[in-house]
Amino acid sequence: MSLIGHGGKEIVERVVDPKEAVEKIRGLTQIPIRDQIAREVIMISYGFFTPLEGFMTKADVDGVVENMRLANGVVWSIPIVFDMSSEEIAAKGIKEGDTLLLMCQNQPFATLDVEEIFDYDLKKMAAKIYGTEDDKHPGCARTYRYADRFIGGKVTLVNPPKMNEPYDAFFLTPRQMRAKIAEKGWERCVAHQTRNVPHSGHEWLMKHSWIACHADQPVEKTITGVVVSAVMGEKRKGDYIDEAIVLTHDALRKYGYFREDVHLTSIIMWDMRYAGPKEAIFHAIVRTNLGITHHMFGRDHAGVGSYYDPYDAHRIFDTISKEDLRITPIRVLEWWYCPVCGEVTYSGLCGHTKERQNFSGTVVRSIIQDGVKPPRIIFRPEVFDIILETAEKYGFGSAYVNDQYLAQRQPLFTVPPLEL
Amino acid sequence: MSLIGHGGKEIVERVVDPKEAVEKIRGLTQIPIRDQIAREVIMISYGFFTPLEGFMTKADVDGVVENMRLANGVVWSIPIVFDMSSEEIAAKGIKEGDTLLLMCQNQPFATLDVEEIFDYDLKKMAAKIYGTEDDKHPGCARTYRYADRFIGGKVTLVNPPKMNEPYDAFFLTPRQMRAKIAEKGWERCVAHQTRNVPHSGHEWLMKHSWIACHADQPVEKTITGVVVSAVMGEKRKGDYIDEAIVLTHDALRKYGYFREDVHLTSIIMWDMRYAGPKEAIFHAIVRTNLGITHHMFGRDHAGVGSYYDPYDAHRIFDTISKEDLRITPIRVLEWWYCPVCGEVTYSGLCGHTKERQNFSGTVVRSIIQDGVKPPRIIFRPEVFDIILETAEKYGFGSAYVNDQYLAQRQPLFTVPPLEL
Repeated sequence: MSLIGHGGKEIVERVVDPKEAVEKIRGLTQIPIRDQIAREVIMISYGFFTPLEGFMTKADVDGVVENMRLANGVVWSIPIVFDMSSEEIAAKGIKEGDTLLLMCQNQPFATLDVEEIFDYDLKKMAAKIYGTEDDKHPGCARTYRYADRFIGGKVTLVNPPKMNEPYDAFFLTPRQMRAKIAEKGWERCVAHQTRNVPHSGHEWLMKHSWIACHADQPVEKTITGVVVSAVMGEKRKGDYIDEAIVLTHDALRKYGYFREDVHLTSIIMWDMRYAGPKEAIFHAIVRTNLGITHHMFGRDHAGVGSYYDPYDAHRIFDTISKEDLRITPIRVLEWWYCPVCGEVTYSGLCGHTKERQNFSGTVVRSIIQDGVKPPRIIFRPEVFDIILETAEKYGFGSAYVNDQYLAQRQPLFTVPPLEL
Repeated sequence: MSLIGHGGKEIVERVVDPKEAVEKIRGLTQIPIRDQIAREVIMISYGFFTPLEGFMTKADVDGVVENMRLANGVVWSIPIVFDMSSEEIAAKGIKEGDTLLLMCQNQPFATLDVEEIFDYDLKKMAAKIYGTEDDKHPGCARTYRYADRFIGGKVTLVNPPKMNEPYDAFFLTPRQMRAKIAEKGWERCVAHQTRNVPHSGHEWLMKHSWIACHADQPVEKTITGVVVSAVMGEKRKGDYIDEAIVLTHDALRKYGYFREDVHLTSIIMWDMRYAGPKEAIFHAIVRTNLGITHHMFGRDHAGVGSYYDPYDAHRIFDTISKEDLRITPIRVLEWWYCPVCGEVTYSGLCGHTKERQNFSGTVVRSIIQDGVKPPRIIFRPEVFDIILETAEKYGFGSAYVNDQYLAQRQPLFTVPPLEL
């Protein structure tokens, strides 16, 4: 099993046993972190962001902003930064060379070596990463919310979180995912990025990408898989609740819409930046680190509003070499329901363009809100049942995120108590 | 437009203007030929069988039988031979160095340079090509019907046939097909071999192979096509009539089940040998010469009875290098109707193996014979209408070959009158 990840570097693992860590972290300056930072600490520590070993220093941020590369030349498209106000830095007397203890859920969580304290022009960062300075773009808005200083340096997870049900069945670190892929005997597999519950249009995106990925494989055995890689991160009202996303995708395999031996549902933690093409590159990097060989990109991947052309996230891969990015993009247009064909068909093949019926989010939403079972060719009945069940069990009656869910949801993970 | 065909050789074209030929062929010994030989003369002369320039000499037959290669080392899997009885050879005084005038439809048709007259062990030929000596195997039976001598030598078409309606719209020589592919802007295209009218299972074989062929192509334009390559040759009772085969396939494009810009129906002439894996190689060679880059092979390609494992024709491509065969095989398992999915699904992906409903030829046949329109997800209504129309117009009331069709059908082509 290879442990080589993005940039040809070995998968980063910066996780230590809490028992061993406890002596070293006692007395460190404690810094409570918000959820986004906690998620990124977990991703860095388990190597999802290989070759990053921590939050970026100024040279890395500069490289990413100016050239879409880290200071060492490895392709990277989104700044991964730890922000802190100059007031807090002064108040706590933080200086380069210190080690900070990051606190999550009021527990010791990870250490951060303060290698560099720097500031950065946030307008420039936004303009270069998102192609716009518009504060209505959620990625720009997130950038503008950063405090006025960044701390660059390595992180180490000293108190690994425990994943909560139902996520515990779907969280695989890069090392674990690689072991799982080896166990399944997949020589190739294709990542399906999602933050949706799947209708049959999504199913066909996965089937398409499996076929494309499998293209020239011989017949003897199953050596190609689909890895659903659901993005768990900051939720907004109206999003699908996370529990519905993972459990409905898993249902596609459980109820035979995908064979047991070709399909796997998993999660990563990431707060969407909606950076369109640059985010597509970032997603490709993370899935490379998971040991996945191909990555599906559909229409308007990681886009928002009309900031990007629907296929900008396809085109950017024409500018990246196989040496710079090991994963192979599978670029798919649209699957829609065609009433003439009586089935879900591909925009690149079906000629009934006037009759086509797009899978509109609004229509799907109204189906779900009405609670009336749609035809099985649009929505699998088992998927529909699980949407309703998860709404009751986890969503305070709704499959869509509401205020109550935002305030009271079961968190993705629990940081175990650790006495210093 | 490249004119390089199989074996890296330029596409053979051995066709002369009848007006120029007439002086040279007057007085040659006239040999009436049967339909199989006429079809092979046409294929050779237009370069479908490049690098062959004529019927095989003994060294080529030996190479094909023993090593699946011509004497010059180029991969070749089926003997292409011109047989004649020793009695006829003696009666007509044919000797090496002669040129014969092959007569078709009582008209001068082609010349054959008698390079070599030889005999061959037909049992050995059958055993090596078909993997069996069983005379119930139609390929063996065809082999055993050969006369006791073969004549090897170049052929030249001196009186090109005129294709009859409806075939005239679908017959493209290798040079014409390459021009058509260039005109369509296809950088890749995939051949779909057929002797069937298409149900939706066939449609999905084509869609699957298009997706696999298109796999890593960028988004900007249509650069991948499907070329239906229907095999027109000796008919047996119960086969679909040729007119139904070509017109129904064309209807898939005409009525939008394939986009205008991705689909083309064409024909080749060939009497099926049912040689399974070896015939798959042969089909790949012919489509290479047509300028096609990929070739779909489904279950039991060119097989018959239980002489071959359903996927022997997939496995044989593992033994052939890209240097030996330029076309890329796309190996597809089965598409079936799945009542749980409510659609046509792929055996490699769909887990509802107990519920699956194969597209049985018997069921499809009974549907057609009853004349009751099946659901559009199984059989396109326009395809069904054309089956009934062609049955009336060309099939003496039947879409399946019967005695009357065998005796009175409109031939594929007419050899124009040519006075010597």
